[in-house]
Amino acid sequence: MSEPARIGLLGRGTVGGAFAVLLDERASAVEAMTGRRPQLSGVLRRGEGDFGEILAASDLIVELIGGIEPAREYVLAALAAGRPVVTANKQLIAQHGGELFSAARDAGVQLRFEAAVAGAIPVIRVVQESLGALEIERISGIVNGTTNFILSEMAATGADYAEVLARAQELGYAEADPTEDVNGADAAAKMAILARLAFDTPVKLDDVAFEGIETIQPEDIAYARELGLSLKLLGVAERHAEAISVRVFPCFLYRGHPLAPVEGPFNAITVEAPAITEITMSGPGAGGTETASAVLGDVVSILAGEAPVHVPGAELEVRADLESSFYLHLEVADRPGVLAAVAEVLGRNRLSVKSVVQHGLGDEARLVMVLHRAPEASFYAAVEQISGLEFMRGAPRAIRVIEKEYV
Amino acid sequence: MSEPARIGLLGRGTVGGAFAVLLDERASAVEAMTGRRPQLSGVLRRGEGDFGEILAASDLIVELIGGIEPAREYVLAALAAGRPVVTANKQLIAQHGGELFSAARDAGVQLRFEAAVAGAIPVIRVVQESLGALEIERISGIVNGTTNFILSEMAATGADYAEVLARAQELGYAEADPTEDVNGADAAAKMAILARLAFDTPVKLDDVAFEGIETIQPEDIAYARELGLSLKLLGVAERHAEAISVRVFPCFLYRGHPLAPVEGPFNAITVEAPAITEITMSGPGAGGTETASAVLGDVVSILAGEAPVHVPGAELEVRADLESSFYLHLEVADRPGVLAAVAEVLGRNRLSVKSVVQHGLGDEARLVMVLHRAPEASFYAAVEQISGLEFMRGAPRAIRVIEKEYV
Repeated sequence: MSEPARIGLLGRGTVGGAFAVLLDERASAVEAMTGRRPQLSGVLRRGEGDFGEILAASDLIVELIGGIEPAREYVLAALAAGRPVVTANKQLIAQHGGELFSAARDAGVQLRFEAAVAGAIPVIRVVQESLGALEIERISGIVNGTTNFILSEMAATGADYAEVLARAQELGYAEADPTEDVNGADAAAKMAILARLAFDTPVKLDDVAFEGIETIQPEDIAYARELGLSLKLLGVAERHAEAISVRVFPCFLYRGHPLAPVEGPFNAITVEAPAITEITMSGPGAGGTETASAVLGDVVSILAGEAPVHVPGAELEVRADLESSFYLHLEVADRPGVLAAVAEVLGRNRLSVKSVVQHGLGDEARLVMVLHRAPEASFYAAVEQISGLEFMRGAPRAIRVIEKEYV
Repeated sequence: MSEPARIGLLGRGTVGGAFAVLLDERASAVEAMTGRRPQLSGVLRRGEGDFGEILAASDLIVELIGGIEPAREYVLAALAAGRPVVTANKQLIAQHGGELFSAARDAGVQLRFEAAVAGAIPVIRVVQESLGALEIERISGIVNGTTNFILSEMAATGADYAEVLARAQELGYAEADPTEDVNGADAAAKMAILARLAFDTPVKLDDVAFEGIETIQPEDIAYARELGLSLKLLGVAERHAEAISVRVFPCFLYRGHPLAPVEGPFNAITVEAPAITEITMSGPGAGGTETASAVLGDVVSILAGEAPVHVPGAELEVRADLESSFYLHLEVADRPGVLAAVAEVLGRNRLSVKSVVQHGLGDEARLVMVLHRAPEASFYAAVEQISGLEFMRGAPRAIRVIEKEYV
């Protein structure tokens, strides 16, 4: 058995706690991918634990304290001691990225920070690695879930900003002090990080102009909808020949924009480059487990060294006998008793109807329905029985329906 | 100066040609990221060039021949000779992935294949690396652009399958022989690859049941729209306790599904896992340059060894004097001449109106407009002048509009 990977965890708040749980749950998966089983070698909490001792006992440091000091001091010390570091600290990277990246290069160890921007959405890895060699023209991002939730709710309900903010706070989508989120400062820090990576140039936080959503009126959202527009708080980093711009502002998007359908507390980022047109990534932008997942992905990358090794685990059976929801289209004679007869066959096969539409067409009718999830074998048996009914005027047509309700 | 990275290119069709051009264009960027300047050490074309000679002269092999043989033989030979390999060959990975991954492990070199699924969308990297240690529950994908284009067009125009297929062929979105795309076989190969990575289990292509879109009627799409549904050809790979399922079928999605808004020749993939809820990635699924970009991303990852090094290039100026399109909301007295006076101020500042909505509200009116892109300084000057007009009944409100038209 190989040596375990000893992980020193700094901070045990929401994200730190979620990371400790996830690391334990997924230790075998990490071991299968990297050849090393991860284990916590120490946890630094407020007023508990000694950083020097934890560093000495660790192969890798995970910084989840937040804020600038002492996080910066600890990360620099870990890098100087030759330990790779994973952090979720957006302010640290946005304000001191240049210094930290230099320290990592000098020490020849990795510094990873996927969790600093857009939670579990792997935008850092994609911008740095997948698209790293391309000439990126623009990154547009909904990188603050609080404000996207508020704007979505204002659009959906017509309620005003103060009312929706209060609801967001009740639901846990906004902090007790929401200032940094609603005034755009949080998004500005994230865009500073993305702009630095996309354009390979130092970007200071002061370079990022930002506006918030505090003065948005429900009326504006309603009027703009008449013009086919939806409102988002967007971060935009663009290349202009030998210059760039990085800004955060509320703005309207036309319906065809890839970020227009992003609703609720989600984040999404569109990256544009001539060679790829555009790529959009979306998902939950925050949350302890989501952020912890991004941290875990970084830990795995460091332990794997290069690409994670793909080793098949168990040989799982591949099933075909599944349950599905179906759309069913029947062309029938337009006369009494038809719907009852179809319903009887469905009932006999334990299929229930979720919604139905019926249209008369002269002496024929179209009976179109969506059925609730049931074993596919039952469904196909019912369709065969329905095919044999004397009032049928054509072959039944069936198409699956994905029933799962998403946020 | 460090040694160049010698790249042997097998195949010079659409993707191979685009890769050769992109590699040349981005050679300096690759060198900045990896420390090694890439150069083509040999190109194998149909009936031209010798594989053995190219292998001997190369540090890394890029396989873009397509098909199974001789691609399989070449990839195995390259791995056995200790050369990392990048391939875009979905059939090769779907049918012989197990053998090839074993060969790569035995040789201790990387085999990368981002371009085999969904073109420039980095789904392989995200599933293998970012989310590799998570317990993935389901991958749902629109992984064939031809069929998504056809279904989108059928929905938008009401035209039937044969007519839209002919149009897709004219536009280059469908091959002369579209069989593998429209019957679901192409999507099945891609889903076999994704399922293997997501569930760490061998998945044979024969395990993937697939149905196509050839029998879809415009009528079905129209009826389903009444039920709030849109039609997609979806690949779905799911975990069921100790088993999995992998299938491709046309199906209806409810409006809230993250794949429902994906229109035209685009691809998109949603990955679900308990820790992250879901992540969705979308972008162009095919095209020579897009696929070549994915190949280049893999080449960079191999050359970089671990994470690419982030070294700032030039220090780019950060600009603030930009052009934008604006929404402008004015509360005005409801009387003749108001619109003319506003239009005069806009004209004087070289601002032109794209669309306008006016509503009377008793003796006041709301004048809401979207202006075409112009320097922000001009816009703000106009707003200040408008503020001073005697018929104004409140402060003007301005919000940016992202004007870019997306596909």
